[in-house]
Amino acid sequence: MDRRERGLDTLGLARELGRRVAALDYDDLPAEAIRWARVGLLDTVGVTLAGAHEDAPRLAARALDGQQGPALVLGTRRQAGVLDAALINGTASHALDFDDCNNTLGGHPSAPVLSALLPLAQQLNRSGRDVVLAYVAGFEAECKLGLAVNFHHYTKGWHPTATLGTFGAAAACARLLGLDGEATATALALAASFASGLKANFGTMAKPLHVGHCARNGLYAARLAHLGYTANAAGVFEHKQGFLDVFNGPGTYDTQRALDAWARPLDIVEPGIAIKQYPCCGSTHPALDAMLALARRHRPRPENVARIDAWIHSRRLAHTDRPRPDSPLDAKFSLQYVLARALLDGRIGVADFEPDSYTQPAVRALLDRIHVAAYDTLEPAVFPAANHFGGQVRITLHDGTVLESRVDQPLGRTSAHPLPDELLRAKFVLCAERALRKDAVDAIADIIGRIETLPRMEALMALLAGAALD
Amino acid sequence: MDRRERGLDTLGLARELGRRVAALDYDDLPAEAIRWARVGLLDTVGVTLAGAHEDAPRLAARALDGQQGPALVLGTRRQAGVLDAALINGTASHALDFDDCNNTLGGHPSAPVLSALLPLAQQLNRSGRDVVLAYVAGFEAECKLGLAVNFHHYTKGWHPTATLGTFGAAAACARLLGLDGEATATALALAASFASGLKANFGTMAKPLHVGHCARNGLYAARLAHLGYTANAAGVFEHKQGFLDVFNGPGTYDTQRALDAWARPLDIVEPGIAIKQYPCCGSTHPALDAMLALARRHRPRPENVARIDAWIHSRRLAHTDRPRPDSPLDAKFSLQYVLARALLDGRIGVADFEPDSYTQPAVRALLDRIHVAAYDTLEPAVFPAANHFGGQVRITLHDGTVLESRVDQPLGRTSAHPLPDELLRAKFVLCAERALRKDAVDAIADIIGRIETLPRMEALMALLAGAALD
Repeated sequence: MDRRERGLDTLGLARELGRRVAALDYDDLPAEAIRWARVGLLDTVGVTLAGAHEDAPRLAARALDGQQGPALVLGTRRQAGVLDAALINGTASHALDFDDCNNTLGGHPSAPVLSALLPLAQQLNRSGRDVVLAYVAGFEAECKLGLAVNFHHYTKGWHPTATLGTFGAAAACARLLGLDGEATATALALAASFASGLKANFGTMAKPLHVGHCARNGLYAARLAHLGYTANAAGVFEHKQGFLDVFNGPGTYDTQRALDAWARPLDIVEPGIAIKQYPCCGSTHPALDAMLALARRHRPRPENVARIDAWIHSRRLAHTDRPRPDSPLDAKFSLQYVLARALLDGRIGVADFEPDSYTQPAVRALLDRIHVAAYDTLEPAVFPAANHFGGQVRITLHDGTVLESRVDQPLGRTSAHPLPDELLRAKFVLCAERALRKDAVDAIADIIGRIETLPRMEALMALLAGAALD
Repeated sequence: MDRRERGLDTLGLARELGRRVAALDYDDLPAEAIRWARVGLLDTVGVTLAGAHEDAPRLAARALDGQQGPALVLGTRRQAGVLDAALINGTASHALDFDDCNNTLGGHPSAPVLSALLPLAQQLNRSGRDVVLAYVAGFEAECKLGLAVNFHHYTKGWHPTATLGTFGAAAACARLLGLDGEATATALALAASFASGLKANFGTMAKPLHVGHCARNGLYAARLAHLGYTANAAGVFEHKQGFLDVFNGPGTYDTQRALDAWARPLDIVEPGIAIKQYPCCGSTHPALDAMLALARRHRPRPENVARIDAWIHSRRLAHTDRPRPDSPLDAKFSLQYVLARALLDGRIGVADFEPDSYTQPAVRALLDRIHVAAYDTLEPAVFPAANHFGGQVRITLHDGTVLESRVDQPLGRTSAHPLPDELLRAKFVLCAERALRKDAVDAIADIIGRIETLPRMEALMALLAGAALD
C-alpha cells in the first residue's frame, strides 16, 4: 500500500467519497459514460412513466400532504414539492420492477439517483450536462460503496437499491448543488442515518416505496449539508457503531476496495447499466431468457410437459422461490410464475403482472410441475462460483424428451452484453405511452438522446408535463 | 407454552402487536397511565419549545420545501404540513437531548410518538383523550419491541429512539386513525422499512434529526396503511431477511418476551417515564447526580482537585467517553465535560451547552484530571450486573482526601423514583419560556394537566401558537 492509499484510509470513507464526488468534472467523463447516462435516463424516465399510475406511487402521493410545488410528478400534470416529487417519482420508477440494474450494487442504480436529481434540477433549472455529471457521480458513489459492502450486504437482507441508493441520491444531489468535498461527506454521513429498507417487504408495495423513500432522503441529506447541517463526516462508516459494522458487521466489508476502484473505470461504463427486458425481478431473468429460448425454438405444448427444472444462483433464489404467488407484486418475484408464463406465451410483458394473470388455470396447472433450485447443487458445476447471473432450464416432456437451455447472463445485463438501441427505444415507447400522449413520446426520447446539450432541464420537464394524459 | 402462546407465535409479531394496539381502549387504561401520559406530554411539549430555535430543527425546516399546512411548528407561529411538522417538531424535541427516557426502550419514548401524534391530532382536531390513548399505545408498542430486541439492539449501534421510535410513532398514529389490527400490522411492517438511525452520528445535529425523521416516517407509515398500502404484515419481523435478523441478528432477540409482557403493566407505568433534569445525554446522569451531591456537600475548590474518577455502565460509557468535546452537541455527550461543569458550578443547565462553554479555561484545566471507566472493571463489584443506571464518582484532593458518592439510579429515572411534580413543572416553565410569552406558559401547563378532559386538541394548539414569540 503506497503513501497515498494509507492517507485514504486515515481520512475515512465519507470524506474520501465526498472529495471524489466533488472533484468529478464533466470533462473527466469518458464518452462512454455520457452515452450510458443517456441510456439510463431514457430507460428510467420510461419505466417511471409506465409505473406512474400504479397503486404504489398513487397511494404514496395521497398519504403526503398534497402540497403544490415546482417539481413535476412524472406521468401527470401535477407539480409537487421537490422532496415529495422525489418520493412519488421514485416509487413510480420501481413500481413495475422494470428499471435498470447494476451488478456491483446488487440492485437498481438509476432510479434512486434520477428520482432525486430530476426534481432538484427542475427547481434549479440546471442544464442537461449538469444532470449527466451529477447522475454519473451518484451512480459511481453508490456502486463503489456496493463494492465495499457486497454481497454480504445484499445477502443479509438489506435492499441495496434503497440502503445504498440513499448514498447515491445524496452524492448526486450534492454534486448538482455544487457542494465541496466536506459538505458532500456530511451529506453522505446524513444518508447513513437515513439508509433503510428490508427485503422482507419484497413482493409488496413497500419495495417500490423504498426507492421513493431513499431518493427523498438522499436529496434531503444533500440539502441539509448545503445549509451547514452537521453529521459525523469523519467516521460515520468506520465508527464501531457506524454504517459498516452496524449494517454489515465486522469483517464483511472492504472500503479500500471501493477507493481503489473509484472511476477505474466508472461503474456506469463497466459493468454498466443492465436494462431489464422483462418487468419482473432481475433475479428471474437468466432462467427466463433460457426458458424463452426453449419456448420460441421448440414451442412445447403445456399438456406435454411432465416437469420443468430451473437453476439460478442461490442468492437470487432466496427471494424468488415463490411457488404460489398471491398478488401482482408477489408474481413479479415468483420464478415459478414467470417460467410458466414464458412457456405458455413465449413472451412476458407488463400485462402479465396485472391482477389475476397469475391465477389463470393454465398457469396454475403448470406451477406444480416447476421445480427450482440453486445451481450450486448441480453436479458437475455448470457455472463458475463467481457468476451469479447464470440460469439453466430443463423441460422434460411426457414422452421422455429433454429440452435444455443455459445462459451465462441475460441479454442487457452488462455493457459487454448490451440491449440493442432499437430494443431500448421500443421499451421506452411502450412504457411512456402508458402515461403520455403518443405524439410526444418520440420527441422526448430525442431530447434525452442529446440530453448533455440541453441548456435547461425545464425544456424536457415541460414536454413531459404537457404530454401527460392526466 | 400454552396453546394461546403458540397461536401468538404463528401470527407473527407485526400482527400480534397490531391487534393489541388496535384493541387498546381508553377504558382499559389505569389511572396511573393517564397520569404519566400527562407528565410525558407536559415534559415533551416543554423540551420541544426549548429546542424550537436550535439550529437542528431550524435548518431541518429550511431544507424542506417550506409549504404551509394545518399543523403548528411548536414555538413558532408557522403552520406546516402534517408530515413536515412531525419532522420539525421531532427534531426540536430532541435538540437539547432533554426529553424523557425509558429503560426498556433504551432511549427516548415520548418524543417520536408525540411529535407524530400532535400534528395529526391537530389536523383531525381530535380530543385530548384520543391523544392520551394513542400515546400510551405507541409508547407500549415501541417499548415492548425494545424488550424483544434490547439491549443487543442498543449496544450494536442502532439508535433505538429512532429505529424503535418509528414503530412507536406508527402504532400511535394508527391508533389515532382508528386502524384495525391488520392495518396496524401493515403500518408496523412499513415502519420496518423506514427504521433507521446510527449512533455513529451522535454528538451532531443528526441525532435530534433522527427523532424528527422517525416521527415523520411512523406517521407516514400509518397514513399509508390507512389508504390500503401493502407490506409484509405476516412476517416482516420473523422473515430471514426481516427486521429481527437483519437489524439484530439471529439469537439476539425474544419476541415472546414482548408479547407476554404487553400491558402487564404498561411500560408508561412501569418502569415508566424518566424525566431528565439535565439537558445532556441520559447516560451521564447517574455520575452527574453523584458529582452534584459531592459538589454541593463539600464544595471542593477545583485547584485542590488532584484527580477525579467516575464509573458508569460500559454500555453507557461507549458513547459518552469524550475527553475533549469540540462542539455543543459533542459536549452533551461528554461525561468528562459534564462532570467538570458540575464540579465547577454545582449545577448544570441549558446554557452550559452553548458554544464555547466547554472550552473555558477552567473546564479545560479540569478535563485532563478526569478519568472515566466502565464499572464492570471495579473490584469488588459495586453495582449488580443488571443495573445499567448506576454511577460512582471519586474525587481525590491534593491533600489526599477522598470524596466518594454513588447513586443506584438518577432521580426521576423510573416511576418508582419519580421527579417531584414541582420540579417537573419548574422544568416546563423554564423550557417553555424560551419560545413562548411568559403569561401563557402556566395556562398551557394547566391544560396539559387535564389533557384527557379536552374535547378538541385545537384548544391547546391555538394557545401554543398564540403565545409563540416569533
